[in-house]
Amino acid sequence: MTGSEKPKVAVLGPLGTYTHEAAFKAFGYDASYEERASISDVFDALSPKTPLGVVPQENSIFGTVIETYDFLRGSDAAFIRGEITIRVEHCLLTKKGVELAQVKRIMSHEQALGQCRDFISQYLPSAHLVKTPSTAAAAQALLDSPPDCAAICSRICATLFDGLEVLFTGIQNQQSNFTRFFVVAHTRQTTLPPVLKNNCQTKALIRLSSPLPPSTEARGPCAFDVTKYLKILDLSTSRIDRRPSLDSVAFRDIYFIEVIGCGKELLDSWTRDVEKGVARMRSLGGEVTLVGVW
Amino acid sequence: MTGSEKPKVAVLGPLGTYTHEAAFKAFGYDASYEERASISDVFDALSPKTPLGVVPQENSIFGTVIETYDFLRGSDAAFIRGEITIRVEHCLLTKKGVELAQVKRIMSHEQALGQCRDFISQYLPSAHLVKTPSTAAAAQALLDSPPDCAAICSRICATLFDGLEVLFTGIQNQQSNFTRFFVVAHTRQTTLPPVLKNNCQTKALIRLSSPLPPSTEARGPCAFDVTKYLKILDLSTSRIDRRPSLDSVAFRDIYFIEVIGCGKELLDSWTRDVEKGVARMRSLGGEVTLVGVW
Repeated sequence: MTGSEKPKVAVLGPLGTYTHEAAFKAFGYDASYEERASISDVFDALSPKTPLGVVPQENSIFGTVIETYDFLRGSDAAFIRGEITIRVEHCLLTKKGVELAQVKRIMSHEQALGQCRDFISQYLPSAHLVKTPSTAAAAQALLDSPPDCAAICSRICATLFDGLEVLFTGIQNQQSNFTRFFVVAHTRQTTLPPVLKNNCQTKALIRLSSPLPPSTEARGPCAFDVTKYLKILDLSTSRIDRRPSLDSVAFRDIYFIEVIGCGKELLDSWTRDVEKGVARMRSLGGEVTLVGVW
Repeated sequence: MTGSEKPKVAVLGPLGTYTHEAAFKAFGYDASYEERASISDVFDALSPKTPLGVVPQENSIFGTVIETYDFLRGSDAAFIRGEITIRVEHCLLTKKGVELAQVKRIMSHEQALGQCRDFISQYLPSAHLVKTPSTAAAAQALLDSPPDCAAICSRICATLFDGLEVLFTGIQNQQSNFTRFFVVAHTRQTTLPPVLKNNCQTKALIRLSSPLPPSTEARGPCAFDVTKYLKILDLSTSRIDRRPSLDSVAFRDIYFIEVIGCGKELLDSWTRDVEKGVARMRSLGGEVTLVGVW
């Protein structure tokens, strides 16, 4: 990415998804967005030409996004450089000028239709529900639909697609619904747009695989004690997640340990603290990799 | 459960699933098995009449079984009293006397068909594949099918359904495929059949919820430091898993901490050690519950 050019940010597409909304929240008009069909495609897109990507990491109701963790298990082709949290707020969009009473069909992703059940049964009880592959696809389909159609999707779709407007916002049943995203970069050194540097808190993500057990069968009595590693790491942890390793050793675990600063560190000194912790962990024998600092 | 009567064990059904096979491995003919349609149904079945249940907890390739953890998040209606690990070994079953060359159709659950792709393309490349709701349902369907049909399922199906036999065992692509199951009991005091008491290792599962944050919005800067709790617990951990809490506080976590003894404890003294650790954790302010000892 050279001086004045807008950096390219790969997002889980199509444009108009919540991932795109999160990326736009972070980078706004200072970046150009490239839609990718899956989370692994976002990671695979990272290159000198597309130095950044945004992928969902965790939803406050459904939990971690396994596809993101599973990519981070096996690859060092990306480095986490930031996080973005957005409130998932479903909106009802129609073509401009359409009123609620006209709506006979509602299009959206199956999950979003389910999450807005209360709104639909109160305001549009006889509407016909049509499933689409994503919430953004519903908004796009609205463009070629008759005026009695509506879409449930992210607010950003009204900005993306000319001729649409937001009729209602926050129509989901459960109001406390947040998704947290990772900003992933092609390398640790990738230049970030200034907006992402205003962290009020420093964090890092450490990947820890247990040493190979003596037998290749299922885990024996000498279980891998992750607490030992956490003690020697000696930093505050904000999240711990576990996935099976990619090799053929049954129940060999990979832990993802997210550590958090006290809020006063500068990123450089925080990075050094984390790297020292990682070195201490390595002394216990596990495979330890720093997969992000932000 | 009274003296000589066989205890009833609820399993994720239909009979012939890997959960049933695991339960049979633990209890054999000393129990009677009750099939249930889902993991929550197994938990809901627990009662004085059906004091025990078996549910899958983790597969060595696919990771934790979220439905099991999610039930344990919100309910104290079950207590984990044991574990069973089995190798997932798909078998090819036919009606008795049928030879491989006769097989034109293979029935199984979609996942099992995928997991045996190599075997099928080598030995039965032109067979027609038919999806069934479970591997056990494929075996059952075999009974009413012509002799050119085969089923991919657990070995136990050949014992369960008269007239079937095992033609090949271990036909899955990846040989290292294990699933671990929890034996759940109606109460902590439920009598266990003697077979389950021969543990060579003591374990316990502790559920930890963070104290309620001051704000009901997304998690603020004072993140919940699970390492503090692990330090004060001061036992070896064999697994740590994380799920979102059930209340409406975004990113409030529930951790499941599995601890493991050094292999020499008696169950009673181990239980006391764990309970002391739980009490120490409570002193830090989190909600801490012992959900299993075995």
